[in-house]
Amino acid sequence: MKHIPVILFGAGGVGRALLRQIIDTRDLVASRNRCRFDVVCVLDSRSWLWQPAGLGDDQLLQIIYAKEAGQRIGGRRLDGLQVLDQLPEAGLERCLVADVTAAVGMEPVINKALEAGYGVVLANKKPLTGPWEDAKHYFAHPSLRYESTVGGGQPVISTLRYLRDTGDQIFGIEGQLSGTLGYICSQLDRGSDFSQALADANAMGYTEPDPREDLGGQDVKRKILILGRMAGWPLEDEEIEVESLESQMRTAKYCDI
Amino acid sequence: MKHIPVILFGAGGVGRALLRQIIDTRDLVASRNRCRFDVVCVLDSRSWLWQPAGLGDDQLLQIIYAKEAGQRIGGRRLDGLQVLDQLPEAGLERCLVADVTAAVGMEPVINKALEAGYGVVLANKKPLTGPWEDAKHYFAHPSLRYESTVGGGQPVISTLRYLRDTGDQIFGIEGQLSGTLGYICSQLDRGSDFSQALADANAMGYTEPDPREDLGGQDVKRKILILGRMAGWPLEDEEIEVESLESQMRTAKYCDI
Repeated sequence: MKHIPVILFGAGGVGRALLRQIIDTRDLVASRNRCRFDVVCVLDSRSWLWQPAGLGDDQLLQIIYAKEAGQRIGGRRLDGLQVLDQLPEAGLERCLVADVTAAVGMEPVINKALEAGYGVVLANKKPLTGPWEDAKHYFAHPSLRYESTVGGGQPVISTLRYLRDTGDQIFGIEGQLSGTLGYICSQLDRGSDFSQALADANAMGYTEPDPREDLGGQDVKRKILILGRMAGWPLEDEEIEVESLESQMRTAKYCDI
Repeated sequence: MKHIPVILFGAGGVGRALLRQIIDTRDLVASRNRCRFDVVCVLDSRSWLWQPAGLGDDQLLQIIYAKEAGQRIGGRRLDGLQVLDQLPEAGLERCLVADVTAAVGMEPVINKALEAGYGVVLANKKPLTGPWEDAKHYFAHPSLRYESTVGGGQPVISTLRYLRDTGDQIFGIEGQLSGTLGYICSQLDRGSDFSQALADANAMGYTEPDPREDLGGQDVKRKILILGRMAGWPLEDEEIEVESLESQMRTAKYCDI
């Protein structure tokens, strides 16, 4: 059985779902893939819990409950780069770093992890959508995966990668790129008012942590950048036009911005 | 650059398309995946060409042209198991065996390749659709892939694998499982007669090498077996009911059976 030490940056909705999945699929992953994910470290923006031998499932559940109750994970956390320094000191090798935050500025941590030969998995779109010059090495790196950044559980990223790996040229991509906006528009069609539709989308976990990123089109723009760059087009943020729904939001009761 | 020796069983429509793709994507595969496919051996049902250092692209093109002209690939071929015996004798390791035939009886070759630690890729559905007791180890083997057996270029198999790997349970699968039958039915809807629709489907390469396998439902049945077995249901051939179009075919002018 191969043990894979996992360092999890982020314990919001996505991070907690990932922890639950790791706990719930231990037997399956052991029998199908002959490996085990040892979550050695979980961090949110302020606190962390670190256990080089792997946090127990009871500890992982406690993290989930604490975060759901708005509490800290543990003690005051180290800086991301310092966290990575701890790993070889603790004898950990071939780690997997998961960035399931929506944070800016994760690039130094990701770069350092890749340089150490670790695998990196991103649910965070921001590192992939900075200036092309900074981001392009991510799109060519064999140890970086980001399937959940576009399309959620649908095989969008893997299919695009497979098409490109086998020599297909991409001429265009069409899609409904925002589940949040799709949901809100459907609710508006059904006669719901905007404030209520947005509040419902938020309650169901469809929105980004900051819903302005959905409504302002920033989240859609990032998905376009990721798909376009994968397709072989070195797009920059300012080349993409999106129409914002934010003006509607300013008049809505839900958000006070 | 990693060199991967490839042994190709089958040089029909699929095999020739694969050879063309290998030739056409050499630069891309080198830059994106840092590997090169050295096709060391190509076999049809009667003849073969074997070059342990890797057949040149000119030789691969000659194979394509020869097969298109109905000619032999080369000299009288060895038995499949004997072919595999040649590989270590020629100093070849970590080979990739591709079965793109529609042949029965390939299981001993596939099993021997897997035991040798080679990767195996199947376009041939038959090894996957024999009795469950014989086939089940293929569905759990980490070095066997068969993406093109169902859905052609669409990511059907990989998606199903991914869903199962990550703990999802499959409750049902719906689909239009035969491009051939879909095409023929569309043509019938447009007023074409059956003989012509079948002849057209055959001319465009949609049909199996023996079109009775499409029309009799055997090909659809095999796809159902593959998808169902991947989904975790240990189905047997006799549990699946299909309706044959073969009676129509008997009255058609196209085939003399």
